[in-house]
Amino acid sequence: MKVVKFGGTSVASGQQIKKVFDIVTSDPKRKIVVVSAPGKRFKEDVKVTDLLIKCGEEYLNNGSVKETYEAVVNRYVEIAKELGLSNDIIDRISADLQEILHGDKSNPARFMDAVKASGEDNNAKLITAYFQSRGVEAHYVNPKEAGLIVSDEPGNAQVLPEAYENLKKLRDRSGILIFPGFFGYSKDGKLVTFSRGGSDITGSILANGVGAEIYENFTDVDAVYSVNPNFVENPKEIRELTYKEMRELSYAGFAVFHDEALIPAFRAGIPVNIKNTNNPSAPGTKIVHERTDSNGPVVGIASDTGFCSIYVNKYLMNREIGFGRRLLQILEDFGLSYEHTPSGIDDISVILRQDQFDSETERKVVERIKKELEVDNIEVAYDLAVIMIVGEGMRKNVGTMARAATALAKSGVNLEMINQGSSEVSMMFGVKGTDEKKAVQALYEEFFGTT
Amino acid sequence: MKVVKFGGTSVASGQQIKKVFDIVTSDPKRKIVVVSAPGKRFKEDVKVTDLLIKCGEEYLNNGSVKETYEAVVNRYVEIAKELGLSNDIIDRISADLQEILHGDKSNPARFMDAVKASGEDNNAKLITAYFQSRGVEAHYVNPKEAGLIVSDEPGNAQVLPEAYENLKKLRDRSGILIFPGFFGYSKDGKLVTFSRGGSDITGSILANGVGAEIYENFTDVDAVYSVNPNFVENPKEIRELTYKEMRELSYAGFAVFHDEALIPAFRAGIPVNIKNTNNPSAPGTKIVHERTDSNGPVVGIASDTGFCSIYVNKYLMNREIGFGRRLLQILEDFGLSYEHTPSGIDDISVILRQDQFDSETERKVVERIKKELEVDNIEVAYDLAVIMIVGEGMRKNVGTMARAATALAKSGVNLEMINQGSSEVSMMFGVKGTDEKKAVQALYEEFFGTT
Repeated sequence: MKVVKFGGTSVASGQQIKKVFDIVTSDPKRKIVVVSAPGKRFKEDVKVTDLLIKCGEEYLNNGSVKETYEAVVNRYVEIAKELGLSNDIIDRISADLQEILHGDKSNPARFMDAVKASGEDNNAKLITAYFQSRGVEAHYVNPKEAGLIVSDEPGNAQVLPEAYENLKKLRDRSGILIFPGFFGYSKDGKLVTFSRGGSDITGSILANGVGAEIYENFTDVDAVYSVNPNFVENPKEIRELTYKEMRELSYAGFAVFHDEALIPAFRAGIPVNIKNTNNPSAPGTKIVHERTDSNGPVVGIASDTGFCSIYVNKYLMNREIGFGRRLLQILEDFGLSYEHTPSGIDDISVILRQDQFDSETERKVVERIKKELEVDNIEVAYDLAVIMIVGEGMRKNVGTMARAATALAKSGVNLEMINQGSSEVSMMFGVKGTDEKKAVQALYEEFFGTT
Repeated sequence: MKVVKFGGTSVASGQQIKKVFDIVTSDPKRKIVVVSAPGKRFKEDVKVTDLLIKCGEEYLNNGSVKETYEAVVNRYVEIAKELGLSNDIIDRISADLQEILHGDKSNPARFMDAVKASGEDNNAKLITAYFQSRGVEAHYVNPKEAGLIVSDEPGNAQVLPEAYENLKKLRDRSGILIFPGFFGYSKDGKLVTFSRGGSDITGSILANGVGAEIYENFTDVDAVYSVNPNFVENPKEIRELTYKEMRELSYAGFAVFHDEALIPAFRAGIPVNIKNTNNPSAPGTKIVHERTDSNGPVVGIASDTGFCSIYVNKYLMNREIGFGRRLLQILEDFGLSYEHTPSGIDDISVILRQDQFDSETERKVVERIKKELEVDNIEVAYDLAVIMIVGEGMRKNVGTMARAATALAKSGVNLEMINQGSSEVSMMFGVKGTDEKKAVQALYEEFFGTT
């Protein structure tokens, strides 16, 4: 049995949903189908979820909403027309949406969750109607009825253990099951959404629950690329990578799959296959526990800018038990999360994303560090880039660092920081933000170049 | 004005003390002389400080002590004989020691401090007598009378700010001032010692107090070597290095100068010159704020074994604000100090010296980490070596890491960890303990080799 999930662009139009039908029905093992809300059909298009957020906020503020409401409904109307469906399904969707929008607004977060979730929910109903119109046994499944129980955290639901037991029973149902992504229900029956992009999570939970042999995640790219295509033309596609590699790459530029969505599949050891709805015969990228496909020590290169470093120096720092812990405590008191803490004997740098660090926070943090830790010196540097090279193969490969550092040196990039821990499958390089592209290109050429 | 300090081997015998006399009197600027207790004259010899510790402990335990006591006095007798001094000085030393040994034992730590400090104190008196016998104006100076005020922490005294003001007045005294190292007095007049090897600290405090132009530290090596001579034959001597470089090198194998002793000189910007009593014309090694002598990006390579790593892995670790801080808190609760914390996205390794980490502590630490941090995986690895390459020049030198990593790769050494922070003057490599020598040799050849 396979769980198949289709992302926003895969269900954005009637034409796309016909592809979904073909993909699902071409393999009888594709029994459970998770769908997103209709996404973008072209670059300037607006996702239904974004329309719904606007619509919900307008209702909350008692503004004029007719236009936004109609924009939402029209997306379904267009899809239904393309698919030759009767008006019944549109009437059903409109009535559902009206009921939600005129519902209880005493808890705005809960109201917004219900509005947002309607995007997936109504699309699942519409797609079910289409499958049925093609003479296939298909059933819409409501997450509440199926028992997808989650924690009561609007916009950040976490699946509860009992959900898996409930969902296991879906195995016994007949026909193709069309399941809306993105939300579940709390123990007391309240609708709660996952974090944005959470349809990936629904699919992973279902794959775990029913014990699927594979979780196919259809999107609009042929594969996960080994490097950001904005930096390198026609980068190599990754055929196979491990959960751990995928996670390390998720640092940046590898946002094809939701972070949290890997967990249920990972826990159950179910491979995830990223595939392209528009090119389903391409093998895509498989995320597995252990990979057989070996193409050198490095499988991918990720990078991101917008990091800053707080450098702290104090003579005999390494004799002071608790120094590092107290430094991190100060950051924690300001709700700051950090990425790395490279250190010497008497100094330590903390690398964090600078978007959480405005000048007022900087001033307060620096003041507390100076006062409480009595440091000799503190410096904050902005606009650093972090580059990760990732691959299980580098773990025992003598010379990967030598190749990487040599490639960077040859390209004239200075290394501000380096971080590699024991048993890791990644190496981190900190460079100036302006050097990011040059550094990534040099590393790609070294590990994937044709020369 | 220069402050000159002579280490244990430089004052271990009459013959050595004659060299001290020649060195001091050859330069009229050498006005303040700090002396250690008599050290080893040959490899199997026992330091007077160690004899005194034994003697003090025997007195505390009411054991038979005649033999040990006589061993101490005999060292001074032999020195006095070599120097042609009369018995007066020996009578004075014996009487002093008897008084201390029969003194108050209600506070054993304080009693031991007094016994230990007598080694330096009596040697200062003896050396003063010798200088006077040679017709030179020399005065023994007692730290109490001079106002060397320290915190009341037996065996770990810290200098107090007012000491510097008091010591400044030594400038106005006439003649050569012979000052015993290793101890000061608390505000209420109790003798308190610095940590072991603390005569270096006394010299540094005096240099700061009198505003010396240089602090000469005479020991038994021609210079600080760029690498451990046990690993490389005839290693290059370091002519100049900065305080920061010296500190980074102190990781291991560079124990010629006491860590804490750098601080007072560093704060006052006084250069420290490490010189050889047995070869005083050699230039030695100068420790300065900024160095002019440039011999490539790396000035030295230090290494040490006996490290272990605690590797912790948890999916989505980097989303958990406070994870690293809580991990370090657990180590702190066990009084463990750590060296480095290289990290990936979902994992972190803590590197610490394994001598503080017995199997019972390991069991408890691992249990708490598992329970409180709910980690997916935890592994403890032992017998790692840490290698530091150090040099102010590498800070802005593109390619130092490339050269180091390539040299290590060519020698077949796998890098378990790498750590380099921003603005640092060192790079840290973690390798298997069994690879330490090979790794150090490869790095030495790369940065100092003749080829």
